Amino acid sequence: MSDNKYILVVNGPNLNLLGKRQPEIYGATSLEDINRELATQLPPDFALITKQSNCEGEIIDNIHEAGFDPDCAGIILNAGAYSHYSLAIADAIAAVNTPVVEVHLSNIYAREEYRHKSVIAPVCRGSISGFGPLSYSLALKAILEL
Amino acid sequence: MSDNKYILVVNGPNLNLLGKRQPEIYGATSLEDINRELATQLPPDFALITKQSNCEGEIIDNIHEAGFDPDCAGIILNAGAYSHYSLAIADAIAAVNTPVVEVHLSNIYAREEYRHKSVIAPVCRGSISGFGPLSYSLALKAILEL
Amino acid sequence: MSDNKYILVVNGPNLNLLGKRQPEIYGATSLEDINRELATQLPPDFALITKQSNCEGEIIDNIHEAGFDPDCAGIILNAGAYSHYSLAIADAIAAVNTPVVEVHLSNIYAREEYRHKSVIAPVCRGSISGFGPLSYSLALKAILEL
Amino acid sequence: MSDNKYILVVNGPNLNLLGKRQPEIYGATSLEDINRELATQLPPDFALITKQSNCEGEIIDNIHEAGFDPDCAGIILNAGAYSHYSLAIADAIAAVNTPVVEVHLSNIYAREEYRHKSVIAPVCRGSISGFGPLSYSLALKAILEL
Amino acid sequence: MSDNKYILVVNGPNLNLLGKRQPEIYGATSLEDINRELATQLPPDFALITKQSNCEGEIIDNIHEAGFDPDCAGIILNAGAYSHYSLAIADAIAAVNTPVVEVHLSNIYAREEYRHKSVIAPVCRGSISGFGPLSYSLALKAILEL
Amino acid sequence: MSDNKYILVVNGPNLNLLGKRQPEIYGATSLEDINRELATQLPPDFALITKQSNCEGEIIDNIHEAGFDPDCAGIILNAGAYSHYSLAIADAIAAVNTPVVEVHLSNIYAREEYRHKSVIAPVCRGSISGFGPLSYSLALKAILEL
Amino acid sequence: MSDNKYILVVNGPNLNLLGKRQPEIYGATSLEDINRELATQLPPDFALITKQSNCEGEIIDNIHEAGFDPDCAGIILNAGAYSHYSLAIADAIAAVNTPVVEVHLSNIYAREEYRHKSVIAPVCRGSISGFGPLSYSLALKAILEL
Amino acid sequence: MSDNKYILVVNGPNLNLLGKRQPEIYGATSLEDINRELATQLPPDFALITKQSNCEGEIIDNIHEAGFDPDCAGIILNAGAYSHYSLAIADAIAAVNTPVVEVHLSNIYAREEYRHKSVIAPVCRGSISGFGPLSYSLALKAILEL
Amino acid sequence: MSDNKYILVVNGPNLNLLGKRQPEIYGATSLEDINRELATQLPPDFALITKQSNCEGEIIDNIHEAGFDPDCAGIILNAGAYSHYSLAIADAIAAVNTPVVEVHLSNIYAREEYRHKSVIAPVCRGSISGFGPLSYSLALKAILEL
Amino acid sequence: MSDNKYILVVNGPNLNLLGKRQPEIYGATSLEDINRELATQLPPDFALITKQSNCEGEIIDNIHEAGFDPDCAGIILNAGAYSHYSLAIADAIAAVNTPVVEVHLSNIYAREEYRHKSVIAPVCRGSISGFGPLSYSLALKAILEL
Amino acid sequence: MSDNKYILVVNGPNLNLLGKRQPEIYGATSLEDINRELATQLPPDFALITKQSNCEGEIIDNIHEAGFDPDCAGIILNAGAYSHYSLAIADAIAAVNTPVVEVHLSNIYAREEYRHKSVIAPVCRGSISGFGPLSYSLALKAILEL
Amino acid sequence: MSDNKYILVVNGPNLNLLGKRQPEIYGATSLEDINRELATQLPPDFALITKQSNCEGEIIDNIHEAGFDPDCAGIILNAGAYSHYSLAIADAIAAVNTPVVEVHLSNIYAREEYRHKSVIAPVCRGSISGFGPLSYSLALKAILEL
Repeated sequence: MSDNKYILVVNGPNLNLLGKRQPEIYGATSLEDINRELATQLPPDFALITKQSNCEGEIIDNIHEAGFDPDCAGIILNAGAYSHYSLAIADAIAAVNTPVVEVHLSNIYAREEYRHKSVIAPVCRGSISGFGPLSYSLALKAILEL
Repeated sequence: MSDNKYILVVNGPNLNLLGKRQPEIYGATSLEDINRELATQLPPDFALITKQSNCEGEIIDNIHEAGFDPDCAGIILNAGAYSHYSLAIADAIAAVNTPVVEVHLSNIYAREEYRHKSVIAPVCRGSISGFGPLSYSLALKAILEL
Repeated sequence: MSDNKYILVVNGPNLNLLGKRQPEIYGATSLEDINRELATQLPPDFALITKQSNCEGEIIDNIHEAGFDPDCAGIILNAGAYSHYSLAIADAIAAVNTPVVEVHLSNIYAREEYRHKSVIAPVCRGSISGFGPLSYSLALKAILEL
Repeated sequence: MSDNKYILVVNGPNLNLLGKRQPEIYGATSLEDINRELATQLPPDFALITKQSNCEGEIIDNIHEAGFDPDCAGIILNAGAYSHYSLAIADAIAAVNTPVVEVHLSNIYAREEYRHKSVIAPVCRGSISGFGPLSYSLALKAILEL
Repeated sequence: MSDNKYILVVNGPNLNLLGKRQPEIYGATSLEDINRELATQLPPDFALITKQSNCEGEIIDNIHEAGFDPDCAGIILNAGAYSHYSLAIADAIAAVNTPVVEVHLSNIYAREEYRHKSVIAPVCRGSISGFGPLSYSLALKAILEL
Repeated sequence: MSDNKYILVVNGPNLNLLGKRQPEIYGATSLEDINRELATQLPPDFALITKQSNCEGEIIDNIHEAGFDPDCAGIILNAGAYSHYSLAIADAIAAVNTPVVEVHLSNIYAREEYRHKSVIAPVCRGSISGFGPLSYSLALKAILEL
Repeated sequence: MSDNKYILVVNGPNLNLLGKRQPEIYGATSLEDINRELATQLPPDFALITKQSNCEGEIIDNIHEAGFDPDCAGIILNAGAYSHYSLAIADAIAAVNTPVVEVHLSNIYAREEYRHKSVIAPVCRGSISGFGPLSYSLALKAILEL
Repeated sequence: MSDNKYILVVNGPNLNLLGKRQPEIYGATSLEDINRELATQLPPDFALITKQSNCEGEIIDNIHEAGFDPDCAGIILNAGAYSHYSLAIADAIAAVNTPVVEVHLSNIYAREEYRHKSVIAPVCRGSISGFGPLSYSLALKAILEL
Repeated sequence: MSDNKYILVVNGPNLNLLGKRQPEIYGATSLEDINRELATQLPPDFALITKQSNCEGEIIDNIHEAGFDPDCAGIILNAGAYSHYSLAIADAIAAVNTPVVEVHLSNIYAREEYRHKSVIAPVCRGSISGFGPLSYSLALKAILEL
Repeated sequence: MSDNKYILVVNGPNLNLLGKRQPEIYGATSLEDINRELATQLPPDFALITKQSNCEGEIIDNIHEAGFDPDCAGIILNAGAYSHYSLAIADAIAAVNTPVVEVHLSNIYAREEYRHKSVIAPVCRGSISGFGPLSYSLALKAILEL
Repeated sequence: MSDNKYILVVNGPNLNLLGKRQPEIYGATSLEDINRELATQLPPDFALITKQSNCEGEIIDNIHEAGFDPDCAGIILNAGAYSHYSLAIADAIAAVNTPVVEVHLSNIYAREEYRHKSVIAPVCRGSISGFGPLSYSLALKAILEL
Repeated sequence: MSDNKYILVVNGPNLNLLGKRQPEIYGATSLEDINRELATQLPPDFALITKQSNCEGEIIDNIHEAGFDPDCAGIILNAGAYSHYSLAIADAIAAVNTPVVEVHLSNIYAREEYRHKSVIAPVCRGSISGFGPLSYSLALKAILEL
């Protein structure tokens, strides 16, 4: 990791089930498929590090670790349901130096009322939602062009 | 676990303290007592698997593991205080195939305002609250008869 | 009624339509079917008395009558839509000595917002919702075991 | 009723249980005791008519009947829990000519949040709460002196 | 009633007072006048059945009775103040097959805040308010043309 | 327009798309069809003037123009989504002398929460919603009979 | 004051203007008239002490002074607009031993929304509102009979 | 426009001021710069049509026009402040067949409370906010890849 | 306009009806009268430009045009009902360099609840309401003295 | 004070600190400066009486005293923070005959949420805020021209 | 006071009753005891000045007086019930230079809902609640160490 | 740990970043510095045990472990962002015997709205916020003196 830049992708709770979880909402693509596809879109000298955790504390740890690392060009974060109430993750994002981009597969504004509000959105660099796996690609492009 | 059906009982935060925690609310029975008693109520070819965790992420992991296992006939879930705000656990319940029954020892509607709302109730098969350890037995009966 | 214990089942508004009312929500079983099935689950020396009324005042009268009668072992109450606003029924439940168990056929937390709140839940012994006709059987078991 | 004035006392849901219902809140006096005592406080040429009903519709009927009768000097109304949501009773009070005085035995403002609001108070002549059976006597005095 | 179609008109609480109740709001026409006038507007082979009750439960009974009767072409319902909180009447409307049209004499949106919301409107076929007795005629026309 | 009375029909935003816009909600009839049908229902000496605009300001202009014209017998207004927030249109209605009747094709109370509130309803003469194109005919009848 | 019991009447802000302040709401009787009339209704061995202040702090001082004095049989308090927000006066009432009765000349529930809530009502012995100067007489009777 | 596909970019109120309006929030790039840059990112056979209007009605007209045109591959919409209340624009988006992507230059969730809610988000295909002019490029990429 | 300073007066929806619109609220003076009177109060080298529009977009255009013009000394804005919800006009005011003063003829705080909140007030230099046509004169004086 | 008219200026809590209190919000001018400047703007036969108090009760006393005095032409009131909750001062303003004009130095709508609501605004003749010391001059002009 | 530093302790409404007021909440220690004990904890060259007032205005005066005095090292403020609504006291704290520390004897978050919010907390240096008389000692230590 | 008392300090999410996280809010002192300094303030026979975790479940575990240990004299808890929503931590505090003192470095009431409410405050012995690292020292003193 010493002479290459990298981008961290952090996926939160229940995203490990992608592909077999409510496919009418989340689609049939697995998280591994998304990560694999994303890696193909990187510039030559960039690596992709991917994490998934159902634990709020581990997501915070992941953000901390990369967030002060000058080799990390940015964090793509799909915090899943934690997006709607984890002020602790929001504090972690606000604390680090690395830009964090929020992504959602589904259009969270077209779903249940409680999914309309993201407590992490205010401290992210930007938010992208509703494009399925393409949301991640757009976030990658955003980090690379910023 | 290959040729027997089983039922998973998941207990959330602070339920490991049952028996020594505010007995005027939660009673003097320990969680082990409840689990032992519950096991005696199973049909011959059923096993009982019991979990307790104070960690939201582990509860989600437990639900994921059993929730796609055809041997699991159902999940009895007492999510404790997480019932009132863990949208991540609610998403896990909605994601799995196995029916989940919500239980509470105390009558949550007769306590503090914030305990009146369960964010996991909408995605559970049904809810039972207020009967002390008997709440678990009723949930067991419900899963077996469904 | 002098030397036998009994259990009172009170059904509120629109429950007389069970079986022909929105069967996708309430199922195809009629109230008579539920009551008949329930009667088969009683211990030998117990009787079942069943009432149905669309009138808030009559439901209160029913609760009053049984609520101070030492022969009544418990009241199973499905107050239907009154559950969500009848503070008068709630006061009646709080006033009597007999334990009252709240039941709902459907999972009221998975339906319209206004059905999420039961004003009678805080004064009932416990609440059971979402199991269809089985909700009544669970309530019966609860009263008998309390 | 032709040549005498009278005062109507209407008591709503659960007030028939006075004396045996939660005496720590409502006291040990029965409704009959209150009515009997009240009758002793009338001027010579006045009669007292007393009603109690658990049914919202009957309370409305009672108010209608007396409310346009020139012999009725006033209505003392303890609408119990209906005070907090019966807009239909409120409409009945607003519709009639006779002054209606609202009474409560307990101090409704010192109890549960939902008892703080009376939907009938705005259309009554005045409100008296918190004095136990004396609340009725004060209401009687108020009607006689108005 | 066997070989003729009919339309049911159900009037709720305090509407029996029409003509003598707050005429500046509700006008000087009595309920009998409205019903009589309405009958003159029927097609030859249609009958009009009219009900008025101050009791929520009786209104539900009326809706049940006609709501599954193939001879009933529709129900015109002025639920008065119950419109604003009777979820039990709303459930009755949702339960029946016959179309129900909501009417109000006054413009409920131009009056007190609590009259702006009708809990029965969502389950009615349509709503008409503010035209005085003409509201009923419009509802009749609506049912006949649907 | 000098010796004939007329009625103005004003249709607001997106109503020009009727027939091709979400037909499961708004039906297959075009706005031209509705207007043509409506014209057939006029008394001999009445004309129909119809307007449609997606612009709040133009709708206000239309109301102003007809609202002080003694030849205009009334305005039928379907303000579409502006019904829910255009206080400026509400002020225009309140300002003019001509009676304005609010119509909606769909039952706005059976749709999204934000469609339940009409800010123009309080200043209209009356409101009609849920009858499809028939809503306009009922409004026409209302204006002619007022 | 040593061998006679007394009753304290405390009037809050703007009540010094009674008689010349908005007589359509508050009547034409001055505060002096009310106090004078009230004095005539006392039993022989009772004195009346009357205070009026526009200052929240002085009202608290008045309550403190009498509230621990065994000679004071009770306090009649019309806290005027302070009733709606002075938690400091509420704390004073809760702190003292003497019973305090809340009075209002007008029916506060029939006026502006913000007058519907009294923050002092929960800590008073009882509340009386809407009877004009008679409110004070009823409060006096209440204290004497308690 | 007959044999080429095109993408429509609609910019709402105050966006014509980009570059000279609060540059600390909106940056120094003008709308012309953004549009010019965007055009360079199109595939060979695609055209870019750009509109800007401060008028809600014109924005609706623009959406209508392109929204049923099979040559239009998608609409990029920055509705500015209308995003937060224009239910009429939201209805227009829901009405058309063409996918609409919502963009914002600034992170609307990091600004005033009222900017956190977009009423058009629920009916757009997806939302992108916070990336400055890059937000438009990401939206373009999204439409081209969908 | 090259060598003279000017002040722009922008009047919003329904203000063209001044004098014939609800004179009990808005008075009998026409908008032309107000503008004419205002012109007499200008210093010798100042011109008055007056606009009125019912269209939100045109009001924004007017503000843009003058708002970056160094000859414009200030804008007097009566946005009428748009004051209560037009975030787009608020954004326009925030965007320009020229000071904007908000005026209202009536005391908006003494009217309907929804008129108490002005979304443009926070971005104006100051606000003046309740003085009738004098409100404009005060605003003029304010701009000239700032 | 017998043959001259006067205007009363009442300043509320913390306004005695003007000049040394948060000058970035309130400016560097002292209250004495404002009063002195204001006196120079009076017509020949008018006097200025100025009061400042941190005590709610004294402000009420000041309003009472001048409010029924025919020599007082008007009251200029800057109630400071009391503006946001003193219903007692609001009642005092409503009670008196003299017109009261509300002033604020800062634009209260551009500050903390709780400063956006003035409970005294509805009962004042008009309100002026945001012009610094000039707010007082405008109020003076308003009173003199009314 | 010229060559010594001092600390001001300001106690608000009802705190003069400490020791005899609801001892189950506030304890048996009097305010004099607390002040005496506090004085023993001062460094040699510091004086303690203590004030108690039930009057909001006097508390403001006390804060003003010390708040610009360079000899005052800090203010310990227990504003009692005023903590929950006195925006005027909050403004006084924000206005002065001296640090102010908020103290409460009881844990205000464990009591009635309305005591959970302190409007003065945001402008104090820090807050300490729940430690009984020790709260004052902690505040003293805080001021001395800051 | 057998013959010595100890105090447990639990620090929650993101507090491991102290010193390098937003120093303008949280200061430049690291958590290790705070703990080291705190240890110097202990009485001779007391030990300090310090924990930090970003995981809600581990914080609960820490509280459980010490909370029933008679050697633990008290727990100092800075739950970071969990303070604002972790009802599970609140339940843990309520469950244990050891007193828990809540601390915050910053004045949480002077920051974002959502930081004003602590769900753990009601079950803690007391709360201290706003004094930076000194908050911990005050909490230590509080536990030692209780």
